[in-house]
Amino acid sequence: MEFMEQRILRDGQVRPGNILKVDSFLNHQLDVDLLDQVGKAFYDRFQGRGINKILTVEASGIAIACLTARYFHVPVVFAKKARSKNIDGDTYTSLVHSFTYGRDYTVTMAKKFLGPNDTVLLVDDFLAVGKAMRGLIDICSQAGANVAGIGIAIEKGFQEGGKELRNQGYDVFSLAIVDHMEDSGEIFFREA
Amino acid sequence: MEFMEQRILRDGQVRPGNILKVDSFLNHQLDVDLLDQVGKAFYDRFQGRGINKILTVEASGIAIACLTARYFHVPVVFAKKARSKNIDGDTYTSLVHSFTYGRDYTVTMAKKFLGPNDTVLLVDDFLAVGKAMRGLIDICSQAGANVAGIGIAIEKGFQEGGKELRNQGYDVFSLAIVDHMEDSGEIFFREA
Repeated sequence: MEFMEQRILRDGQVRPGNILKVDSFLNHQLDVDLLDQVGKAFYDRFQGRGINKILTVEASGIAIACLTARYFHVPVVFAKKARSKNIDGDTYTSLVHSFTYGRDYTVTMAKKFLGPNDTVLLVDDFLAVGKAMRGLIDICSQAGANVAGIGIAIEKGFQEGGKELRNQGYDVFSLAIVDHMEDSGEIFFREA
Repeated sequence: MEFMEQRILRDGQVRPGNILKVDSFLNHQLDVDLLDQVGKAFYDRFQGRGINKILTVEASGIAIACLTARYFHVPVVFAKKARSKNIDGDTYTSLVHSFTYGRDYTVTMAKKFLGPNDTVLLVDDFLAVGKAMRGLIDICSQAGANVAGIGIAIEKGFQEGGKELRNQGYDVFSLAIVDHMEDSGEIFFREA
């Protein structure tokens, strides 16, 4: 959508290795008014599907998930990355390889928060190779929950995640799809 | 405040080791309507102090920070716990011992997002021994930023963090202060 593409052009920075830094508004410093627009856009797209939970992975998906959930008036459940002393023994787990972190990690979600009666919207700030989203989908599969849609702020269209998920029949709605980025710092979008 | 105490009594669970589990509404599954009330309460308390940023630590502070920031119409900046390939070389760092994780970790914040012209509200879901909050305060000190106040959803009054911060002159506003918890599961509050 125009508002996300414009913000990326204004404040996004291209870094070596096809990295798009959006840390001034999306995933370190957060522009909450912008994220509210994201939540509204996801609501407009996915309302009426019986969604009763918004799912994401910590940490940069949480803000988007909360602002989306405000419109739906449903809870957020976020998959955790770190082991803590404070998580239920009874959890769904899935192994994820992170492009950002350069290593594998496990995502976990307490079983009591997701089950076969749930219809969920999965959201995240980025979709690239799609491993984090696969982890969430795997957790939903273990839970028997229905995935009604996937909402993404920025999709890296030159990586396979979006294409694979759509080919499998998931309704993936991305507010901006980056087609390619130049070393000069220019960013080119494709139609979302 | 009444609404937070009532929710803790309804859904909070006492666990051995003085753990209060609030994972069904505050830090794993999130009741966004409740968190919106938290944000409003913090805004009512801290408005008019020139706050231009809301600071927290990932991950369970992010939701509260975003819903608070909506009322203030200012950005959120969250300190990160994990090293990623994607963080600026130019960062503030502080070492934190976590009661929850049982180990030390480093919190980091990119320097470009905090400086001497900033007046900040620090928020988090829990205040216990206060180490995470000390890490944030340390970052603010390195940045030269002014801490206008501290907003906490649940304070464990039987641990020293709140008392020490107030003794040092910080304006700590906690929506619920747990006085003590019984093995039976009963939870007792003190006046906030």
